[in-house]
Amino acid sequence: MKLVEGFSKLSKQEKINFLKDNYLSDFPEADTILHQYLNEDVKLQRLHDEFIENTLTNFYLPFGVAPNFTINGKNYIIPMAIEESSVVAAASKAAKFWGQRGGFKATVIGTEKVGQVHFTYAGNFQELNQFVDEIKSDLKLAIKPITKNMEKRGGGIKSIELRNKTEDLAHYYQLHCTFETKDAMGANFINSCLEELAKVLQERASVQLSSNLEIVMSILSNYVPNCTVKAEVSCPINQLGATKEEAEKYAKKFLQAIQIATIEPYRAVTHNKGIMNGIDAVVLATGNDFRAVEAGVHAFASRNGKYKSLTHAKIENDVFTFWIEVPLALGTVGGLTSLHPLVKLALALLQHPSAEELMKIVAVAGLAQNFGAVNSLVTTGIQEGHMKMHLMNILNQFDANAKERNQAVEHFKTNTVTHSSVVEFIQSIRS
Amino acid sequence: MKLVEGFSKLSKQEKINFLKDNYLSDFPEADTILHQYLNEDVKLQRLHDEFIENTLTNFYLPFGVAPNFTINGKNYIIPMAIEESSVVAAASKAAKFWGQRGGFKATVIGTEKVGQVHFTYAGNFQELNQFVDEIKSDLKLAIKPITKNMEKRGGGIKSIELRNKTEDLAHYYQLHCTFETKDAMGANFINSCLEELAKVLQERASVQLSSNLEIVMSILSNYVPNCTVKAEVSCPINQLGATKEEAEKYAKKFLQAIQIATIEPYRAVTHNKGIMNGIDAVVLATGNDFRAVEAGVHAFASRNGKYKSLTHAKIENDVFTFWIEVPLALGTVGGLTSLHPLVKLALALLQHPSAEELMKIVAVAGLAQNFGAVNSLVTTGIQEGHMKMHLMNILNQFDANAKERNQAVEHFKTNTVTHSSVVEFIQSIRS
Repeated sequence: MKLVEGFSKLSKQEKINFLKDNYLSDFPEADTILHQYLNEDVKLQRLHDEFIENTLTNFYLPFGVAPNFTINGKNYIIPMAIEESSVVAAASKAAKFWGQRGGFKATVIGTEKVGQVHFTYAGNFQELNQFVDEIKSDLKLAIKPITKNMEKRGGGIKSIELRNKTEDLAHYYQLHCTFETKDAMGANFINSCLEELAKVLQERASVQLSSNLEIVMSILSNYVPNCTVKAEVSCPINQLGATKEEAEKYAKKFLQAIQIATIEPYRAVTHNKGIMNGIDAVVLATGNDFRAVEAGVHAFASRNGKYKSLTHAKIENDVFTFWIEVPLALGTVGGLTSLHPLVKLALALLQHPSAEELMKIVAVAGLAQNFGAVNSLVTTGIQEGHMKMHLMNILNQFDANAKERNQAVEHFKTNTVTHSSVVEFIQSIRS
Repeated sequence: MKLVEGFSKLSKQEKINFLKDNYLSDFPEADTILHQYLNEDVKLQRLHDEFIENTLTNFYLPFGVAPNFTINGKNYIIPMAIEESSVVAAASKAAKFWGQRGGFKATVIGTEKVGQVHFTYAGNFQELNQFVDEIKSDLKLAIKPITKNMEKRGGGIKSIELRNKTEDLAHYYQLHCTFETKDAMGANFINSCLEELAKVLQERASVQLSSNLEIVMSILSNYVPNCTVKAEVSCPINQLGATKEEAEKYAKKFLQAIQIATIEPYRAVTHNKGIMNGIDAVVLATGNDFRAVEAGVHAFASRNGKYKSLTHAKIENDVFTFWIEVPLALGTVGGLTSLHPLVKLALALLQHPSAEELMKIVAVAGLAQNFGAVNSLVTTGIQEGHMKMHLMNILNQFDANAKERNQAVEHFKTNTVTHSSVVEFIQSIRS
């Protein structure tokens, strides 16, 4: 098949026709499916179409809510967009459990964002260093048109530092810059600043430096180890079980699970994946970029040379404490937050949080999710809850009626749910 | 506010009413928004409702397609679910560029999945080791009811290995198990196997071992360094520019950008984030779990003690080669793949790929995305493309008419797009 010319310029229906003719000849329901997911409100659909290129329709993620979160004494119901069953249920359960034990405490530790101008310079380091010192105030001045509005809100560029990386790569230097972007995530702001800084750096260098300075690229970093938030829960150990013995046994096992996730990367990765189930669900629902958050979080988990758990637990003076520290660069203004109606609703539901408040809420969602997962793992096992939801999904797939559903639920109380075992069971009761 | 009882048992409208009364009194449009995103096909809506708990409505991610991918000589149009502007455009552009230069090559390196039974044992290691050896065949036999269907498809459990982790944590051991799950992602299969293995291990230990063996937890790992795929592109260097000099300069700068992402974690994180823009978009559209993929990929990027780029580039004998190696545990059967109509369509569009074929396609999407990003960064800068889309989004937000749009596009050809500068511009032309 030859390369297609001008695909992006076709109308939506022309694009769909092209797919049908060339790729979907064995899938006659394509047209119906693509159309049934379109919104009949033409203006709303156009809004969603224009978020990206070549949009054909809307991909549904379930939008749900987890109630009963108490964070720093305030009550929240947390919106989540997620396709994985039992995430919302686990979050709600953990929220209620800890709501009865004083709730969650959360604190923002820092809000520093980072961006870098990467460049090469073949000349003398001292000369370069002096040059950067000399032009630093001019650099800041040059980006005033971009920073002035951010400064009104209390943000802006905080520092510009020359970093010598020539030991790692010949002639390689950076302008390592830090920013405060207040309630904006700040990616566009930072990138615009950096590109302007690079332009001025290049211009001035060509006049003032004796050797050639060349810009490689200018871009924000999603690694934000100084933009972090801590969330925690704690309670007297005896509130973790019906008897003192039970409570202590449970707490000890819970701690063991956290210790294992700290020393064993195979476990740590899945442990943190569970945390991200909660974090991403809120990140998505509030119109933030989950790839940015994921990259920053996992790099943070590996920052000391070994990939580790993001959550920690301890028992001191008969008090059980469980906490997370996690980097989160989030925004509650700009980007999708003011464009996507459901995102606006999600932020209203959270009482129009500032970026710092949202950091706290998201970290709590991650901690709650992890509590739910570890709690299941060290007690009933993870499959019991998962499988209850999974069974329902498979039954839906086979259009099971009420009677068949009841029979299946009864049968799988004592039998292991796998996709094939459910299919076999349905076939057996139908034959 | 007191904790809510029985929220999950309320009907959808009762849930919405509860939110309106308690959290959304300043957001009167809530009801309308939640309802306008519901699908009018009641059965389809019920299907989506039941994916998770407390579903209120559907969160839209744009579903688009990137054409012109040639992978191992076969032509693909790749479905993507993603909210970030310019991801599909960049993928399409990179696909076409490399389509004219021989296309993408992709190879699956391994498909091994991992799961672990974590347990403690206070006794002698030799005794434990001998015991595990003795019961190994019984363990495999015990999970036959779960594995037999997978075995028919060529999968199953591959190995059970006792790992002594007592140097890291007192009394801590694992059954480290490997699996082949063919076209299933395999999470439920692996977890079901592991929980059964743990049960049998515990039972047998209580009879045969002199000290106490206690299961901590049983769970698959999302760290899959032996379930990887390689994708690459290459061409004679002179095909990278209009003149030999231009081409060489471009290739050198591109290589520099990759080297920087290899030695500098601040850059590596964002570099890989860009890769994940492409990967997650296809992962989502094909009904796979992006948190699982993200966790595995970023841990893999940090596996040698320092967080690094997932892509690599070289110039040898005047040939430019650019490639990615990435762990991807994906499924094309089970889970959402057979439930979500749009996922079925996405898989049909990809010609009903096996899991291995999907691994190749997803890795290519990541490589293409990274090529697009690095290409922009080392030439025009990232903001030019981004801002063109961003400008359109902001204009939508202000319901700009055709005349205002044209004026804005003209104005921002020579002015920096920031959210505030666009707002100012719109206000100025309207006043």
